[in-house]
Amino acid sequence: MSSERRELERVNAFSDGVFAIAITLLVLNIGIPSVPEDELGSALSGLGDDVLAYVIGFAVIGLFWFGHHRLFSRLVRSNGRLVLANMLLLGLVGLMPFTTGLLGRYDGPIVVALYAANVGIATLADGLIHVVARADGLEGERGGRERHFLALTGLRAAVFFLSIPIAYLASPAIAQWLWLLLIGIVFLRHWG
Amino acid sequence: MSSERRELERVNAFSDGVFAIAITLLVLNIGIPSVPEDELGSALSGLGDDVLAYVIGFAVIGLFWFGHHRLFSRLVRSNGRLVLANMLLLGLVGLMPFTTGLLGRYDGPIVVALYAANVGIATLADGLIHVVARADGLEGERGGRERHFLALTGLRAAVFFLSIPIAYLASPAIAQWLWLLLIGIVFLRHWG
Amino acid sequence: MSSERRELERVNAFSDGVFAIAITLLVLNIGIPSVPEDELGSALSGLGDDVLAYVIGFAVIGLFWFGHHRLFSRLVRSNGRLVLANMLLLGLVGLMPFTTGLLGRYDGPIVVALYAANVGIATLADGLIHVVARADGLEGERGGRERHFLALTGLRAAVFFLSIPIAYLASPAIAQWLWLLLIGIVFLRHWG
Amino acid sequence: MSSERRELERVNAFSDGVFAIAITLLVLNIGIPSVPEDELGSALSGLGDDVLAYVIGFAVIGLFWFGHHRLFSRLVRSNGRLVLANMLLLGLVGLMPFTTGLLGRYDGPIVVALYAANVGIATLADGLIHVVARADGLEGERGGRERHFLALTGLRAAVFFLSIPIAYLASPAIAQWLWLLLIGIVFLRHWG
Repeated sequence: MSSERRELERVNAFSDGVFAIAITLLVLNIGIPSVPEDELGSALSGLGDDVLAYVIGFAVIGLFWFGHHRLFSRLVRSNGRLVLANMLLLGLVGLMPFTTGLLGRYDGPIVVALYAANVGIATLADGLIHVVARADGLEGERGGRERHFLALTGLRAAVFFLSIPIAYLASPAIAQWLWLLLIGIVFLRHWG
Repeated sequence: MSSERRELERVNAFSDGVFAIAITLLVLNIGIPSVPEDELGSALSGLGDDVLAYVIGFAVIGLFWFGHHRLFSRLVRSNGRLVLANMLLLGLVGLMPFTTGLLGRYDGPIVVALYAANVGIATLADGLIHVVARADGLEGERGGRERHFLALTGLRAAVFFLSIPIAYLASPAIAQWLWLLLIGIVFLRHWG
Repeated sequence: MSSERRELERVNAFSDGVFAIAITLLVLNIGIPSVPEDELGSALSGLGDDVLAYVIGFAVIGLFWFGHHRLFSRLVRSNGRLVLANMLLLGLVGLMPFTTGLLGRYDGPIVVALYAANVGIATLADGLIHVVARADGLEGERGGRERHFLALTGLRAAVFFLSIPIAYLASPAIAQWLWLLLIGIVFLRHWG
Repeated sequence: MSSERRELERVNAFSDGVFAIAITLLVLNIGIPSVPEDELGSALSGLGDDVLAYVIGFAVIGLFWFGHHRLFSRLVRSNGRLVLANMLLLGLVGLMPFTTGLLGRYDGPIVVALYAANVGIATLADGLIHVVARADGLEGERGGRERHFLALTGLRAAVFFLSIPIAYLASPAIAQWLWLLLIGIVFLRHWG
């Protein structure tokens, strides 16, 4: 393993760690109720929003990890700029346990807007990593395989940013269904 | 290391991270008591259920990790479908700190049912990964070594699903003893 | 990298994850005070015991990781028995954020006894891994390098178990000084 | 991969884990408010200090990781002394979720002093690792590439230690702007 490859592997290992921890911290948002035993059933059924937020949050961080994994598997070396753009992405993914937690606890448009902004900006950071990798020639020979990457990244960011006015003008629930639709399409595309 | 192998290694690294974090978060369910010093002894002896839940939860996540480790050690490459099935498994394992925590805090059949459902469905996700790996030809030459894998997976899922009616019709404690028995058998099989 | 080596690497990766998470969760035991700004100074100075427990807990988990790292660097393959003995060790290390937290919050002999028992039994689990590795021929050619390993492990376990009666008969503080002395000796031996 | 290289890789893996977990735990300091839905907007706008502390804390741990990554990429083997110096650094980085949390919750000079001391001493530990690596001949042929490393480390430590009297004599806010300035310069140097 060359020294350049090794540097890249450590960026991967650190990123995998942050993705794995952020995704696993999501469960802490589903608080264990403190109620008498006979009220437990109704307390648990009140956790529906928390569980839905867990599903959305897990799928979103999972997809960011998957995108990261595919993008980095095409790279052959790292540089300072890539590490910084990656750090920006990780800082935004690291915030998601907070914004996902808000989404589970509250119903208003503000929490939808915050989560959508978090995901949308993180998607732009994803695009920045891609631009840096291309501009600085960090990709190997397989660089051309995903030509539509930037277009798809832009589309994903657009859907999340668009869901902010939808949450305020129409309803927060519609915005969340839009996300689930997008997640479903991405899953189907990878499955099929 | 080939590029296909490297992609698989990152799936392993991410999965190991989620398993390791979920298993280590279990300890947060054993709350440090906030009592005067002279009541500490009795407060600690009231933590017996939390500690039992820790033991069950640790053994169960540990066995899922071990199964994952054996299954993935036979694979030679990854694909989108495998990553998605794996993500489903990780999402269910990531929930276990919550369902294990409920098990330690409450005694009724409902928490036994939730934990059993969590483990049972995660076992089915394990089976799905196996089916995807076989159907998409992701296994190397050693693929035939564990022919009984699916049968054993089905049996394990069945025991957990069966413990749900047992918890309601007989008693939650019997259901938990059944799990401990199953865990003990699996441990003995790997030890002997 | 052979398939046997790869299986061993995943045991290492999972173990490193659990050690790293357990050691980093220790900081959560140092609670951020919720007091008015002008009482912060005295609230912070009341955290002395928490910080001492952090130092002890970090050094102890760090030394377990270091011992694990040295023991596993001599292995050339893994088996079911090794994984189970390792899981026992990880389960005991995973408990340490709880027992370390008790140590910081309370002063009596009971928390010293619990922490000492946790560390002592984990040390025995370390010894069990060593015995399994030797009995099942999992070590490579460098196996003879640390002949005194078991004797040292036994001595370390003995010191921790011995500190339990010391905490009850003499004082909890003396027991903790004994640990710090042991940690200091081990550090000096590795440094010098 | 040689056995010496493998030992070094495990030190890297463990360190990456601690850095990744510490950086991801920072988000837990941004507490999800528990207020009625219509007071959520003002509750969220009160989290500005927590978010600023998150940004500072993330950038600082990120830079420590980056420095660690560059320093260790030059090493060809590990020894006991290096592991201990590294453990000292990790113990100080592991404290940062606590000191960063204080920084977000309170405004006075004492929390600025504690955070600055934490970062300053951790920077010295970084320098110690460098000294150990050079003194014990752990670096490979690329050892001379960063001749100014120690000088830069000393400068970084000096800025943080200097911010302590600034927080007391001038204002805590000025000290924090000084950090942000330093972080910005380091980022620009790596980006440009």
